[in-house]
Amino acid sequence: MLKRNWVMDQIRAVFQNYGYEPLGTPAFESWDLLKKKSGEDAVNQIYYFRDKSDRELGLRFEWTASLARVVSTHRELPKPFKRYAIGPVWRYERPSEMRWREFWQMDVDVVGVADPIADTEVLAVAVDSLKAIGFKGFKIRLNDRRLLEALVEVSGLPKERYLDAFRAVDKRGKIGDEGVLEELDKIGAPRENSQRLLDLTSIKGAPSEVIVRAKTLVEGIQKGLDACEALSSIVEYAEGYGISGDIVVDLGLARGLDYYTGPVFEVYAEGFENEGSIAGGGRYDDLIEIFGGEPTPMTGVSLGPDRLVALLERIGAFEGLNLAPRVYVISVSESVRPKAIEVAQQLRRAGVSTEMDLLSRGMRKQLDNANTKGVSKVVIVGERELAEGCVAVRDMSTAEQKKVKLEELLEYV
Amino acid sequence: MLKRNWVMDQIRAVFQNYGYEPLGTPAFESWDLLKKKSGEDAVNQIYYFRDKSDRELGLRFEWTASLARVVSTHRELPKPFKRYAIGPVWRYERPSEMRWREFWQMDVDVVGVADPIADTEVLAVAVDSLKAIGFKGFKIRLNDRRLLEALVEVSGLPKERYLDAFRAVDKRGKIGDEGVLEELDKIGAPRENSQRLLDLTSIKGAPSEVIVRAKTLVEGIQKGLDACEALSSIVEYAEGYGISGDIVVDLGLARGLDYYTGPVFEVYAEGFENEGSIAGGGRYDDLIEIFGGEPTPMTGVSLGPDRLVALLERIGAFEGLNLAPRVYVISVSESVRPKAIEVAQQLRRAGVSTEMDLLSRGMRKQLDNANTKGVSKVVIVGERELAEGCVAVRDMSTAEQKKVKLEELLEYV
Repeated sequence: MLKRNWVMDQIRAVFQNYGYEPLGTPAFESWDLLKKKSGEDAVNQIYYFRDKSDRELGLRFEWTASLARVVSTHRELPKPFKRYAIGPVWRYERPSEMRWREFWQMDVDVVGVADPIADTEVLAVAVDSLKAIGFKGFKIRLNDRRLLEALVEVSGLPKERYLDAFRAVDKRGKIGDEGVLEELDKIGAPRENSQRLLDLTSIKGAPSEVIVRAKTLVEGIQKGLDACEALSSIVEYAEGYGISGDIVVDLGLARGLDYYTGPVFEVYAEGFENEGSIAGGGRYDDLIEIFGGEPTPMTGVSLGPDRLVALLERIGAFEGLNLAPRVYVISVSESVRPKAIEVAQQLRRAGVSTEMDLLSRGMRKQLDNANTKGVSKVVIVGERELAEGCVAVRDMSTAEQKKVKLEELLEYV
Repeated sequence: MLKRNWVMDQIRAVFQNYGYEPLGTPAFESWDLLKKKSGEDAVNQIYYFRDKSDRELGLRFEWTASLARVVSTHRELPKPFKRYAIGPVWRYERPSEMRWREFWQMDVDVVGVADPIADTEVLAVAVDSLKAIGFKGFKIRLNDRRLLEALVEVSGLPKERYLDAFRAVDKRGKIGDEGVLEELDKIGAPRENSQRLLDLTSIKGAPSEVIVRAKTLVEGIQKGLDACEALSSIVEYAEGYGISGDIVVDLGLARGLDYYTGPVFEVYAEGFENEGSIAGGGRYDDLIEIFGGEPTPMTGVSLGPDRLVALLERIGAFEGLNLAPRVYVISVSESVRPKAIEVAQQLRRAGVSTEMDLLSRGMRKQLDNANTKGVSKVVIVGERELAEGCVAVRDMSTAEQKKVKLEELLEYV
């Protein structure tokens, strides 16, 4: 929890540095709303229930539906609206297990900007967030759903089944090429065409090269060309945003969810390439209309702090962060305890995280306790030192002990 | 949300300065557990549902039950265990309205310390938390449930109905003396005895005086004398903790919830005496046993950030806090936009909250937008200034404008 809090604090600071505002929405949304937003797979994961008034409700399973509800019902919101959201989401992933599932998500979204500058900005927010918590190098996989759609068309697959095609391509990492071909068989695609889609979606590499090649591939298909235009813009903006070196355009990137309409992207950390993406998002310009609002362009990115903590632990990113209390105040005897309390209070009120014993334990046990807590300094309050207006301060890493005047204690620790 | 986040950040820092650790527990608990913890009134407020596996669950309606579950099932937890919890709780207060209710609570609790030093510490945490967010003076109302119980006995009311008696006395502020007497009639108390309880529970004032008087009143009733002892200790410890000036012992304080077993307390802010308490808590040494664990002393205090924000707004505590972005970067023309992005990124990465236009709007509109956002400085990126390696910086409060070298910008803003 300390680690997750630390991660979330750092990332929240980045969100705010980019001018995003927090928007708090409740844990529940109406079941109808959640269903509207979600593909079938997602609906099965939503924590559904009826309340005492027999309304059908669900717990949020991600943040986007809640944002879309707010945007579609509050037309007066000034645009662009840049909001962030941090909090738990719930997914009911395995009904067989006696466990529900709660985890945290951190999202930033830009509402009201059609230009790819917004996609680039949320990507930069993600990269800066990951840098802020200790990740070093990144690879950004970038694609556009319209380009993918055009490639489905080019491959000669049934156009209207393009979502199924996306889903199949998206599973490639898990089920392999043969698996994808089998999935595509199911939508009635001739093997020849499926193989062609597989070939096309294998193309990836430096943006300049891949975008030029993609343009030739989708010649004459407007949405495909629009997508190439958007990708070019993102790559260009990314230079100003200071993230350009890391972008790979990957024509095979689909991202599972159904509602994306334009650029999609995933961020991978150096050293964790096989762990899957650690941030991801994309553009979803149709969602507000689906929710009954005015057509409104939207794009966003999402980070999962629980997972980030787990990865950071593996590279020892939390060592030296000193999340434990810094000082432990020991009272040598009952008679100096009130004074020890005062000393602790003085430190706490000056912003120094300070622990002390509440069980009237002996000096030895207090020292053990201080050790367990991992404090860096122990302040020993004893009668002899107090008579001189002093306390003893022990550095727990060097075991060095020093007499310090009470009025100099704060500065010293 | 910005304000609530700010309030919670300040208070969390205080929690941590006192050595409390975060403990995250899930939003759901089993219905059985929640029922066990709660009086009947509370049970009606719990958001109950059955999940897909037909388990009965409820959303936490406060934090204590979750803590008690953890403590009673994890005997290995080192004691004292000092934990804080921050997050939403849910109460289903008016089934007739089409609204569920979600609000936030911030709790600190000490597990494993029977001595009143723990009660004093959580009180000090509450007071310091309130100071950290801008409240000035405080009144602490202090009582002990055992003392109240003894007073019920002294008054000659039926001993076994003492909880009903507490509840009646607790409503005094709302229903008046006559109302309390009527409530007491219901438990079969002769008016004479009820009146006596009313008189006794009207006693309040400086701790030294009230505690001496209380001792006389409950002579021969051990639990009452124990309570007086505990209250004396708290008052004494409070001196070391730096909160003693503000304590009033109030024999009429009961606090509604059923599970308190010892000291109870409420904090009121100067200038908001009629608004009710802004922090409250007490000792509940029986709860872990009720939950099937080893007998374990516990005490804690709770703060409600939503309400604190509402009160702070009324005294203008958020003015001058500058929760808005600090800088707005304007690009004078499309051609310098990439450079404007770079400038914004430079500031953001140095920790300066910076906003810029994402809609390619004209200079006038960008200035308006900067104004609306309430930034303190606007950085204007134009071709002429750039040629000299400069940008123009406008102070939004004085409207003064100055040319600043790019390499000196960060320092300047």
